[in-house]
Amino acid sequence: MARPIVLTTDFGHSDNYVGIMKGVIRKISPFADILDLNHNINQGDIANASYNIETAYNYFPDYSVFLCVIDPGVGSERRAIAIETENHFFVSPDNGVLSFILKNENIKSCVELNKSDYFLKEVSDTFHGRDIFAPIAAHISLKKELHELGTPINHESLIRLENTAHKSEEVIHGKIRQSDYFGNLITDIPADWLEKKKKN
Amino acid sequence: MARPIVLTTDFGHSDNYVGIMKGVIRKISPFADILDLNHNINQGDIANASYNIETAYNYFPDYSVFLCVIDPGVGSERRAIAIETENHFFVSPDNGVLSFILKNENIKSCVELNKSDYFLKEVSDTFHGRDIFAPIAAHISLKKELHELGTPINHESLIRLENTAHKSEEVIHGKIRQSDYFGNLITDIPADWLEKKKKN
Amino acid sequence: MARPIVLTTDFGHSDNYVGIMKGVIRKISPFADILDLNHNINQGDIANASYNIETAYNYFPDYSVFLCVIDPGVGSERRAIAIETENHFFVSPDNGVLSFILKNENIKSCVELNKSDYFLKEVSDTFHGRDIFAPIAAHISLKKELHELGTPINHESLIRLENTAHKSEEVIHGKIRQSDYFGNLITDIPADWLEKKKKN
Repeated sequence: MARPIVLTTDFGHSDNYVGIMKGVIRKISPFADILDLNHNINQGDIANASYNIETAYNYFPDYSVFLCVIDPGVGSERRAIAIETENHFFVSPDNGVLSFILKNENIKSCVELNKSDYFLKEVSDTFHGRDIFAPIAAHISLKKELHELGTPINHESLIRLENTAHKSEEVIHGKIRQSDYFGNLITDIPADWLEKKKKN
Repeated sequence: MARPIVLTTDFGHSDNYVGIMKGVIRKISPFADILDLNHNINQGDIANASYNIETAYNYFPDYSVFLCVIDPGVGSERRAIAIETENHFFVSPDNGVLSFILKNENIKSCVELNKSDYFLKEVSDTFHGRDIFAPIAAHISLKKELHELGTPINHESLIRLENTAHKSEEVIHGKIRQSDYFGNLITDIPADWLEKKKKN
Repeated sequence: MARPIVLTTDFGHSDNYVGIMKGVIRKISPFADILDLNHNINQGDIANASYNIETAYNYFPDYSVFLCVIDPGVGSERRAIAIETENHFFVSPDNGVLSFILKNENIKSCVELNKSDYFLKEVSDTFHGRDIFAPIAAHISLKKELHELGTPINHESLIRLENTAHKSEEVIHGKIRQSDYFGNLITDIPADWLEKKKKN
């Protein structure tokens, strides 16, 4: 049985880009379950993408493969990476979108995706979701080992999102990670800072 | 073979909420077909949700499980219910969204979903779609009997939507149930009222 | 194993229309993979639909069935057609949306879909996606031969989109086929016209 693949992108729903990625996956991994987490991540907003995956991944089956294509650095030198934890797999650009994994999970394996045998034959400058990330996720769904798909790297070298929240005696500063459809605003301010505030 | 699950919500597509519900379903019922009917129901609009399901359910396979999460009363005392008819299953809050079933179908079984063994371990105040309704739909897709998932109730006790249409000699009043993408407005005025009108 | 079905429509995501088509497909073909290519084609914009399918179809598995419902002529005399090429199947109204196939592929079979045994029992005036095209695609996914589903026609008789691009010494004229979510505008001007221009 193939591992499920869970998609998160900032591609929206007005183009054929998400559909094409599913075609690429399906061509390599004919039976993997393909599930959409969210394709309306704010364009290029890594903190927003990170929030969406962090609050969702534990609700998915063990060994799901999370494919995250929020990639403001596409075409630049940023690395493509894959991470294996105790219970899941994650594939994304190395831009901080998976910071929460490094904080919450034991890392079993971490690789730089640099073996072009597992990419599509032609790799464009602008659509690595189709040409690199989708094929890699499909191969992981087929139980290919991470060390076959890339070169092991030290996960300490991965880019991390900085938490912007800080506080003085009177003021707490933070950023909004998610502004949802129901009007809720979710910030990066730790909940216990607010509880302490309440007790004063 | 697992029964298909058909989703209708007012969650939109900009968050990870629908995706998380699919993860919850997939974790319990690994092979059920999960189909989206509509996630752009007007927020909290029970008549709109009801219209969307009423006009669709007969096009789906027998024994499909319709999961309907339009829930303006989440966090209040409204009941969670499941209904079995001759050919389908329906899971929703008891808020009138399934009124048409009571009118159109023979009810084989109707239960209040009050057995927390079948919910997620932690039930939030605001996301019963994830914590209660999705797991229940997944268990029904696995052919768990309704009387195992809840306490039988008399379907006469269910909340029904009132049809607001009424008429005098010269005027017909109704409400719009659906305003579609192509500009069509569908009302709750019975078609035969208009036909009679035409004949005058 | 059933053939995958890939959907392209201009139905948007605010109604239950796409969901109903999936129900119809699933009722006939219980195991076919159903993949969304794009449901936000500009309403009635055949060139836009054509662009979306032309740039995508080679990324999908062999023998995928592309179901394309962009149908400004629904209710008029336009034909419904199905085409088989070396590697894929296409089902659509005969309105030019598949012109690129005639240019790029060998046509193995081409039929007019006029056998109502394979439609839903009641065919509406306005929703042929549900009543004609979805059931036909489902039957093709089950490996029904095209000549059983319709009457063979000469593919030379199919309607073709005219390419509107033209040029004089100083000016190139073209139309935008796709305006994407990232702000890219893609025209119907052949790339080599621009390269020639560059060399001047």
